[in-house]
Amino acid sequence: MPDADSPLLLRAARRQPTPVTPVWLMRQAGRYLPEYRAMRERHSFLDLCRNAEAAAEVTLQPVRRFPLDAAILFADILLILEPLGVGLEFARGEGPVIHRPVRGEADVARLKPIDVASSVGFVFETVRVVRRALPAKVALIGFAGAPFTVASYVVEGGASRDYLHTKRLMYEAPGSWHRLLEILAEATATYLNGQIDAGAQAVQLFDSWIGTLAPDDYRTYVLPHTRTVIRALRPGVPVIHFGTGTATLLPLMREAGGDVIGLDWRVPLDAGWSAVGHDVGVQGNLDPAALLARPAVFRERVKAILARAGGRPGHIFNLGHGVHQQTPVEHVQALVEMVHELSAR
Amino acid sequence: MPDADSPLLLRAARRQPTPVTPVWLMRQAGRYLPEYRAMRERHSFLDLCRNAEAAAEVTLQPVRRFPLDAAILFADILLILEPLGVGLEFARGEGPVIHRPVRGEADVARLKPIDVASSVGFVFETVRVVRRALPAKVALIGFAGAPFTVASYVVEGGASRDYLHTKRLMYEAPGSWHRLLEILAEATATYLNGQIDAGAQAVQLFDSWIGTLAPDDYRTYVLPHTRTVIRALRPGVPVIHFGTGTATLLPLMREAGGDVIGLDWRVPLDAGWSAVGHDVGVQGNLDPAALLARPAVFRERVKAILARAGGRPGHIFNLGHGVHQQTPVEHVQALVEMVHELSAR
Repeated sequence: MPDADSPLLLRAARRQPTPVTPVWLMRQAGRYLPEYRAMRERHSFLDLCRNAEAAAEVTLQPVRRFPLDAAILFADILLILEPLGVGLEFARGEGPVIHRPVRGEADVARLKPIDVASSVGFVFETVRVVRRALPAKVALIGFAGAPFTVASYVVEGGASRDYLHTKRLMYEAPGSWHRLLEILAEATATYLNGQIDAGAQAVQLFDSWIGTLAPDDYRTYVLPHTRTVIRALRPGVPVIHFGTGTATLLPLMREAGGDVIGLDWRVPLDAGWSAVGHDVGVQGNLDPAALLARPAVFRERVKAILARAGGRPGHIFNLGHGVHQQTPVEHVQALVEMVHELSAR
Repeated sequence: MPDADSPLLLRAARRQPTPVTPVWLMRQAGRYLPEYRAMRERHSFLDLCRNAEAAAEVTLQPVRRFPLDAAILFADILLILEPLGVGLEFARGEGPVIHRPVRGEADVARLKPIDVASSVGFVFETVRVVRRALPAKVALIGFAGAPFTVASYVVEGGASRDYLHTKRLMYEAPGSWHRLLEILAEATATYLNGQIDAGAQAVQLFDSWIGTLAPDDYRTYVLPHTRTVIRALRPGVPVIHFGTGTATLLPLMREAGGDVIGLDWRVPLDAGWSAVGHDVGVQGNLDPAALLARPAVFRERVKAILARAGGRPGHIFNLGHGVHQQTPVEHVQALVEMVHELSAR
């Protein structure tokens, strides 16, 4: 057992047995925590990301409170876009805005190269600061947005419901679409490798909005680019490949790559694991809305998820998407403790 | 062949062979049509719904332009809520707003009974006017919102992304949740039977936002109520049961009922049909965003869908959700003609 001293999360990501199921939560550092809200009173969102000491502090906040098995770097999937020249702004209370969205061939042709080292180098410093402060048994997860999800913001100009501009570009100007995703895929691989070199022990690729696509579209317009990113990453570092609304995309996401496939709550964990194959791990998949109910209510759901995992090595417990800001802090505490208690082998 | 003179859509809904695949489009009467926009300049949305002559005119607009196999009543799934006392308003440019959302047990206890005949009787008059004007070969489809989707507006106060209030009520006050859905289910059945009695030849139940739920939640909190509605409907009238994001819910939707299950574009039509069983029909499932591309581009997709249906009786062609308002009218024209041309047997 060469890995017996490594963090539980890394062992599970390699499908090695663990004494309990490791657990972390997407958006575990966020608005539901009073200490995070206090930081946000002093810093804008972008300031927090860019200030390595502050970003490290935010990253560590949930780890100090709860017996989590991993910390995830505090950053944003769109930071990488700054050099592209699309006018990225984190508008107060509105989420990200792209002032010059990329809608056609001429827009794609005008994009500037992404120099990752000079534009998001501050993220690497955050990783170093966090890794020094983190207990050895807590894994540090780096992350980036997957090419499709990042491109959807670039094309729509912000968040979207129907992704109509994105799909129109895809269908009507496939050459430009693929060029855009190539640019993003190359920068994303460099970015993730930089995080790994700085101390990230696993990385998660967020394709959060991929569930808007039919499987045929995913195969044609997305899969090759996600695969490019994953294949370019440093060997030996586990990759978690995550999306929502992916019930019909899971076999293709697995084909694109990843040691662990993230499942949302819409797919029963055992069915999702069968769909991706038992030769990869799975992460998930409690509905984050369940945390609004009392722990006695969501405890049954946690039990059901663990039963569906069946004690098979390779399960990382998580929500099916990020913690909602309305979540009571004590419910998160209860969840993390509950996963360890109920999964003890 | 007792049904040889009945509209193609009704024959397909009964899984009888048809010379071509029937086609209609969700939201085929809507903002993408200049003649609809002209009507909306003279009438508010609610006025249009309440004025039987105007609503009938809007219902007929797409049928005059395109060789559609069905008209769908012009109305809104929330009209039925007016008597409930929750403060429904169709706010200009904002979509529906519920001024007194139902969040807890006391709110549910305060709900007023829904007297369908007196509150949405104008819809029945629209059905009668449309049926008189419609050619015999064009079926008239009535519709209503399914209990979950209507309840989600009642609880959230409008459209939602995460349905957190809805899920909290469901998990924390299941008795009140079930009471709310019982009230809606009873009124919905009465409403649909009224449409049928007035001349609707098929009805579609829209559970548009059901894809936010995990299968276990659907089974516990939704299925019994949807089943109540469908079982209460006049026998012999085909029921189309539709939702989006339903890949993992399809077998349960079928269990809840319906002669035809509506599929969105995320599930390949053949896989979706297998999931619901070949002893029901299916409707769908082109991504409505595909209609933003040129007809030469979406023609390949239409072919692929028809190939997946494999000529098996019981397929009604439709989009996976409603026509987007940005859709060029001539693309809709091309689609409807293309379905008939490519499916001719």
